[in-house]
Amino acid sequence: MSSDPQPNMSDISFADLQAKIRTMYFDKDAARGVDGTFMWFMEEVGELASALRGTDKENLAEEFADVIAWLVTIANVADVDLSQALIAKYGQGCPGCGRLECTCPVEEKP
Amino acid sequence: MSSDPQPNMSDISFADLQAKIRTMYFDKDAARGVDGTFMWFMEEVGELASALRGTDKENLAEEFADVIAWLVTIANVADVDLSQALIAKYGQGCPGCGRLECTCPVEEKP
Repeated sequence: MSSDPQPNMSDISFADLQAKIRTMYFDKDAARGVDGTFMWFMEEVGELASALRGTDKENLAEEFADVIAWLVTIANVADVDLSQALIAKYGQGCPGCGRLECTCPVEEKP
Repeated sequence: MSSDPQPNMSDISFADLQAKIRTMYFDKDAARGVDGTFMWFMEEVGELASALRGTDKENLAEEFADVIAWLVTIANVADVDLSQALIAKYGQGCPGCGRLECTCPVEEKP
């Protein structure tokens, strides 16, 4: 495991990732603004769609990471705390039926 | 604080959220498949774009939560571990320049 530079890192929280992305990119992100950042995000969404149609699992994982990174970037520019947003909406279970295992009808939004 | 059913929850990890979304929705998600789930995701992306142009901060936070929830859902159906994907790509700093504070040229990705 000596080749792994962060051997103890097995999970990452939304607050940690949002802080990390802020440190890495905030000056550029703020200068670009929400609209310009959203364009980068959409480009990555397109690459994710392409990867989902392919068979390269490593590339697929990278595209998920990129989409999330750009989404976090937009959240930084728009000053939204993602961990709080997620806990508020999904922390108690499905926002539709309130259960930990959703019982909403299939045709409805959860 | 007695009105808050999870008063100690101040952050959430990607592994926790992915497991929670799996418990809530996996049976429906697997039946819908990647393509159908991607359509729901894109609908939420549109709602996020709309919220970013508005002034309702609470709604904006909800739309971020929904986009993330649908992205996590796609990851569940496609069998991708998001925490591992993020740590692999962003755990050591910017994937472009390798620094914790990015020094890549502005016109370059990321």
